[in-house]
Amino acid sequence: MSANMTAKSFRVRDPNYVERIKGAFGRQGFLRYVDARIEELAPGRCVIVADFRAELAQQNGYFHGGLIGTIADTAGACAASTLIESWQWMLTAEYKINFLAPAKAARLKAVGEVARAGRTLSVSLVHLYGVDDGGQEQLCALATVTVATLEREAPVLQKD
Amino acid sequence: MSANMTAKSFRVRDPNYVERIKGAFGRQGFLRYVDARIEELAPGRCVIVADFRAELAQQNGYFHGGLIGTIADTAGACAASTLIESWQWMLTAEYKINFLAPAKAARLKAVGEVARAGRTLSVSLVHLYGVDDGGQEQLCALATVTVATLEREAPVLQKD
Amino acid sequence: MSANMTAKSFRVRDPNYVERIKGAFGRQGFLRYVDARIEELAPGRCVIVADFRAELAQQNGYFHGGLIGTIADTAGACAASTLIESWQWMLTAEYKINFLAPAKAARLKAVGEVARAGRTLSVSLVHLYGVDDGGQEQLCALATVTVATLEREAPVLQKD
Amino acid sequence: MSANMTAKSFRVRDPNYVERIKGAFGRQGFLRYVDARIEELAPGRCVIVADFRAELAQQNGYFHGGLIGTIADTAGACAASTLIESWQWMLTAEYKINFLAPAKAARLKAVGEVARAGRTLSVSLVHLYGVDDGGQEQLCALATVTVATLEREAPVLQKD
Repeated sequence: MSANMTAKSFRVRDPNYVERIKGAFGRQGFLRYVDARIEELAPGRCVIVADFRAELAQQNGYFHGGLIGTIADTAGACAASTLIESWQWMLTAEYKINFLAPAKAARLKAVGEVARAGRTLSVSLVHLYGVDDGGQEQLCALATVTVATLEREAPVLQKD
Repeated sequence: MSANMTAKSFRVRDPNYVERIKGAFGRQGFLRYVDARIEELAPGRCVIVADFRAELAQQNGYFHGGLIGTIADTAGACAASTLIESWQWMLTAEYKINFLAPAKAARLKAVGEVARAGRTLSVSLVHLYGVDDGGQEQLCALATVTVATLEREAPVLQKD
Repeated sequence: MSANMTAKSFRVRDPNYVERIKGAFGRQGFLRYVDARIEELAPGRCVIVADFRAELAQQNGYFHGGLIGTIADTAGACAASTLIESWQWMLTAEYKINFLAPAKAARLKAVGEVARAGRTLSVSLVHLYGVDDGGQEQLCALATVTVATLEREAPVLQKD
Repeated sequence: MSANMTAKSFRVRDPNYVERIKGAFGRQGFLRYVDARIEELAPGRCVIVADFRAELAQQNGYFHGGLIGTIADTAGACAASTLIESWQWMLTAEYKINFLAPAKAARLKAVGEVARAGRTLSVSLVHLYGVDDGGQEQLCALATVTVATLEREAPVLQKD
C-alpha cells in the first residue's frame, strides 16, 4: 500500500494547507485536551502523535481505545484535508477501527494516508502504532475514515 | 429494534454485574478525564452520558467525533459486559461509527444494546443522542461495537 | 429503533418512488442472478428477500456472508432511495456488516431503515433475519450502509 | 503497508494450507456461482479474481458492490486461513468495505493481507482493483475483514 500511495501523485489545491490545517487543529478543544500533535503533513498524508499519560489510559495502563479512535479519525481527516481548496472544510462521515494489539507504549502514532480524494467524499487508511522509548514501533490498530468535503466551515450536516 | 431487544431475555451470569462494571469503569483514566458516567445498566443494556464542555469539543462547539466514538465504544462494551461471568473480561475488537448530525447539545447520551451475546464474541448496537437542556434528544450518531470475552483480565491480545 | 423510525416522518419527494426503485432494481444483473426481490417499500424503509438455494450457500449449507452483505447493501440503499428526487441517483459509499448467527434458513430477509436522510449522504441501518418455513425469524446479521446521492445516473465517482 | 507486510514473517502451522483452502473454497456454492478463483496463496496473503459478466453487474455495467464485498470477504478470510492449524476453521465475524471508484473492468482482483494473526481473532486488510484487458489496475475499494478461528468446522456461532 505504501508503495502505491507514494507512487500516487496527489494534486494540492491550497499551497497553504499546512497553516490551514494546523490552525483548524489548534481550535479543537478535545485535541488540545488529549495533547495530540501533528508530526507530519504532506500531500495526502498526515501523522499524529500523542504521548502516554494516565489520563489517556484504560484500566490496564494501555492507551484507551476511544483515544486511539480519536487519533485515527484526526489523522485520516487531516490527510484528506491536505488536498482540498483553501475555503473548503471537512467533516468525518464515519470511521471504523480494528484493534490489533494492546497499545502499551510511550507514544501513540497514527499514519493517515488518502486512498481516495474525491470532490465530495474522501477515504483515508490509517495505521496506528505504539512507539516505545527506543523508537521501536508496533502496529496496534487499523482504521478507515470517510470524510465529506463542505464548501465552507459550517454545521451543514444539520440542515443538509 | 428496541422492541426486539426488550422482548429478548438475556441470561445474567454474574448477579453483581453492576458493581463489577462500575468498578472497571472507574479505573479507566480516560473515562474519568472526559467525565463519562454510567446512567443506566440493565441486562444487555448500558447508557453512558457526558456533559458538554469546551475540552470535549471540535472547533465549531460540537462534541468532538473522537469523544463520541469513545462514549459509543464504552456503552457498547459495558452493555455486553452485563452478560459475562464475574471472572471474565471484555476487550473491544473493533467499532464503527456513523455521524448523522452535529452533536451541539448540553449532553451526549449513548444507549448501547446487545445484538448478540456470544461465548467469545458479542456485538452491540449503540444509538447516540445530543440532549439539550430541556431533555429533548436528537439522534447524532450510530455505532456498532464488537467485543471479545477473555477468561481473565489480562493483555492477552498481545500473546494471542 | 423501530419505534423511533416509525415515529419519524420522512418527506417523500418523488411520489413514484416505488416504480423508480423497482425499475432500477430490475436492471441490476447481480440482483436478478441471486434472485433477490423487493418485498416492501415505504418511506425510509425497504425489505429485501432471497430464497435459499445451494448457489447462495457457503460450505455448511448456510447463506454465504457475501450474499448476506449484498442483500444488506441493497436494502439499505433502496430504503434511502425512497426519499430522493425522481432525477437523483444513489451509490453506496461504504457498508459494514456484523454476522451474529449462521443463516441456515429457507429465506433471508433484510429490513433496511433510514437513520439519516441527508442532501448528499444518507445512512441506513439494516437488520437481517433467517426465516424458516414456518415464518419464524432469527436475527443473523446487522449492517450499516452509507449512500451518496448523485444529481443524475452517472459514473460520477470516477471523475469526482 | 506492503513493505510492512512483506517484512513480517508469518508462522505457517499447516504445511498443506493450499490444498485445505482450495478444498474449502470449492465447496462454497456461492463462490462457484460467481466464478471466483484463487489466483495466489502465500502465508498471510490471498489473491482472488472474478471475470466480468452481466450477471455480476449493477445497472451501469460495473461490478456490483455486493459482489465486490463477497470477493473482499473471501480474500480476507482465505489470507487468514493460511495461518491456522489443519483442523481449525474460520468464520467471518464482520467486514467493512469502502468503494473508491466504479469497478468497470474486465476483471476484479482482491488482494488480502493479514494485519493481525491471533489465536481467536484475525484481521485482514483487502485492496480491490479493477483490471482492464491490458492488465492495468485501478484501486476500486478497500476492505477490512475480521475472522474468528474455530477449533473445528461447525456452526458454533449459533450455540456459542
